[in-house]
Amino acid sequence: MSTAEDIGDDKVADLQRQMLALGAAARAAAAVLAKTPAEVKNLALGAAAAAMRDGAAEILAANATDMAAAAQRDLSAALLDRLLLTPDRIEAMAKGLDAIAMLNDPVGDTISEWQRPNGLAIARVRVPLGVIGIIYESRPNVTADAGALCLKSGNAAILRGGSESFHSSRAIHACLLAGLRAAGLPDGAIQLVPTRDRAAVGLMLTMHQHIDIIVPRGGRGLIERVQNESRIPVIAHLDGNCHVYVDGSANMEMAREISLNAKMRRTGICGASETLLVDSHCAASHLAPLVKDLLDAGCEVRGDEATQGVDQRVLVATDSDWRTEYLDSIIAVKVVDDVAAAITHIENYGSHHTECIIADDVEVAERFLAEVDSAIVLHNASTQFADGGEFGMGAEIGISTNRLHARGPVGVEQLTSYKYVVHGQGQIRP
Amino acid sequence: MSTAEDIGDDKVADLQRQMLALGAAARAAAAVLAKTPAEVKNLALGAAAAAMRDGAAEILAANATDMAAAAQRDLSAALLDRLLLTPDRIEAMAKGLDAIAMLNDPVGDTISEWQRPNGLAIARVRVPLGVIGIIYESRPNVTADAGALCLKSGNAAILRGGSESFHSSRAIHACLLAGLRAAGLPDGAIQLVPTRDRAAVGLMLTMHQHIDIIVPRGGRGLIERVQNESRIPVIAHLDGNCHVYVDGSANMEMAREISLNAKMRRTGICGASETLLVDSHCAASHLAPLVKDLLDAGCEVRGDEATQGVDQRVLVATDSDWRTEYLDSIIAVKVVDDVAAAITHIENYGSHHTECIIADDVEVAERFLAEVDSAIVLHNASTQFADGGEFGMGAEIGISTNRLHARGPVGVEQLTSYKYVVHGQGQIRP
Repeated sequence: MSTAEDIGDDKVADLQRQMLALGAAARAAAAVLAKTPAEVKNLALGAAAAAMRDGAAEILAANATDMAAAAQRDLSAALLDRLLLTPDRIEAMAKGLDAIAMLNDPVGDTISEWQRPNGLAIARVRVPLGVIGIIYESRPNVTADAGALCLKSGNAAILRGGSESFHSSRAIHACLLAGLRAAGLPDGAIQLVPTRDRAAVGLMLTMHQHIDIIVPRGGRGLIERVQNESRIPVIAHLDGNCHVYVDGSANMEMAREISLNAKMRRTGICGASETLLVDSHCAASHLAPLVKDLLDAGCEVRGDEATQGVDQRVLVATDSDWRTEYLDSIIAVKVVDDVAAAITHIENYGSHHTECIIADDVEVAERFLAEVDSAIVLHNASTQFADGGEFGMGAEIGISTNRLHARGPVGVEQLTSYKYVVHGQGQIRP
Repeated sequence: MSTAEDIGDDKVADLQRQMLALGAAARAAAAVLAKTPAEVKNLALGAAAAAMRDGAAEILAANATDMAAAAQRDLSAALLDRLLLTPDRIEAMAKGLDAIAMLNDPVGDTISEWQRPNGLAIARVRVPLGVIGIIYESRPNVTADAGALCLKSGNAAILRGGSESFHSSRAIHACLLAGLRAAGLPDGAIQLVPTRDRAAVGLMLTMHQHIDIIVPRGGRGLIERVQNESRIPVIAHLDGNCHVYVDGSANMEMAREISLNAKMRRTGICGASETLLVDSHCAASHLAPLVKDLLDAGCEVRGDEATQGVDQRVLVATDSDWRTEYLDSIIAVKVVDDVAAAITHIENYGSHHTECIIADDVEVAERFLAEVDSAIVLHNASTQFADGGEFGMGAEIGISTNRLHARGPVGVEQLTSYKYVVHGQGQIRP
């Protein structure tokens, strides 16, 4: 007797088997990768980059299939652009692989070492984390970036791309596989979930025997779902509600340049500022030009009463504006009493991502840097520097607002754990 | 209309309110602690130690109440001993607080710093984790140790002791409170769950808004429950199934001393060895004396066929013996082909806690240290050194077999997170 329900159950069981097989292969590959020297991993990355350049036509063809399917659906222009691959974008992906090959291999690095009075020599040595699950949305280039960062840091990767980019991701993954094979590394080192079934994501989030850490890359909906459902530790940030605070001691020109850059250089990145706080002590002189710069650059300004007073183009800010990550040409502006009020506002409304103070008064700046509880705090520099590359860490897999393990940009070093290696000469414990 | 069920619901709601109030107070205290200088925290620790010495009689009286209640129940002698406080044990607790006051304060330490080509100066600076929940069993001294370690590292603590030690923990907590008050720190910095209701533990494990990390201290049952139920990251180890591997190149005397010490110095600690692996290349010479030492010291030996052959007192080991953490005077002994077989055995049966190789051959030792995937790996030293104090870290809150955040002994440094502090001179991102 076979009913629709039986078939449903069979399908679930099939998917479960498939995912567990992926997990087991990843775990086995992780053991190999942990012992793989840097040269071999770099060889694989170089070969993958070559395969990507040689196979650009196949990748473009696969992407055309995805784009055609996307065109049939009601997808936004922004989403279509994220999905699109071009020869330039493929070359950029290949260059990305080459750049990751050039990074220092963190595995085996000694973080610190010391000797005990009894002669024991203790070292903390970096080791890979194990297996990393990456769940992402429409950008197919994440397949290359994330797979390569995991490989470089000695971790096996299980990649689950968005269904819109299914064919593109498969074509890119084929290049990574070619790289692994050229270096004699197991296919299990970088695997792509071979189904669009959304249930696969749910399964990944429970496979704690096989996956050590989950990295979601995408919109708020995805991150929130993963953070709520996962039984595996998640490295991510939900919001980047970043603040620029212009202190009474701020240099006016610097304040104007940084405020504009922090908001408008790119509005769609997590380090873009979303709220501008202006010290009441300089509001009379600084507020109007700061607001004018933003308005003139095409930014919508939503302000408190004081801000509404300086330009009639300013709209009314409501409480929800202080909480909103616009990721768009919109900013909330507020006058605060002083640095203490700025810190309190950020604590109440912020997302602990990235905040900046513009001030000439070093003491005030140090207080802000010490008391604001965010992954990144900057003095006299744009929040748009919140980026692993800008920090000199090379590529990043994302930015974390976690307090555990990795906070801020997550590069290859943050994708490692450590172990203690102890050398003795026969010591026993008394 | 009031039914038994309504009353039950009311009680649940009451407990929930009570726990959330604890959480809110802890969160508020954590913000204060993050800014509290080392001297003030040390003052609180010193005052708490003094209160403990002055109040020894009250603590002993409270402990007598717990002991009397315990005597009415069918508790093991080991458990009663863990519960018992004596003047010496109280003095040891007070000394523990003094020792923690002497440790370096990790908060504010610069982990690393560098300058970017654009002039940005970037520093990774240690900050507290936030709020730490500690769930423990019968030992009342954990109240003092854990509370003090959290305070030193700038974290607020929510302590949930075992119901057997309820009065003892309350009396100890009163001393910690006296210390906090003497230093002008909020009571919320170290709170003790004021009820024996087991439902409080379940609530703690879901309070992710208020608690950043859970540290369970106790038996396997507790750790397993916490790891399975918690929605908050857990730092812990479930098992310490530690191995000593005697390589063919091992010095016989060293092998005998370390094997005996690793097993028998103290059998109840997580770093005690549970399985002895002997290389077939030296089994003919080394196996019999190694086994005889253990048997003569009163250790039960469960061996494979080869081991059974060297002494008639050896019992038969079954597959489950290789997986068992005895925490007792029992050891499993096996002859393995070589170092590769030892590594495979440890991978298959071990718990990634602490393993040791005894070998004169440095190349073999380095292979073992590199390939064995445990928090601590030792060459020619006893596994009983797996301890924060022995590592020079001062007191530890436990040992972690997590791969994320903290692996191995967890001291004050491991109870911190970090943030990036960036100093600029007006840089904007091009």
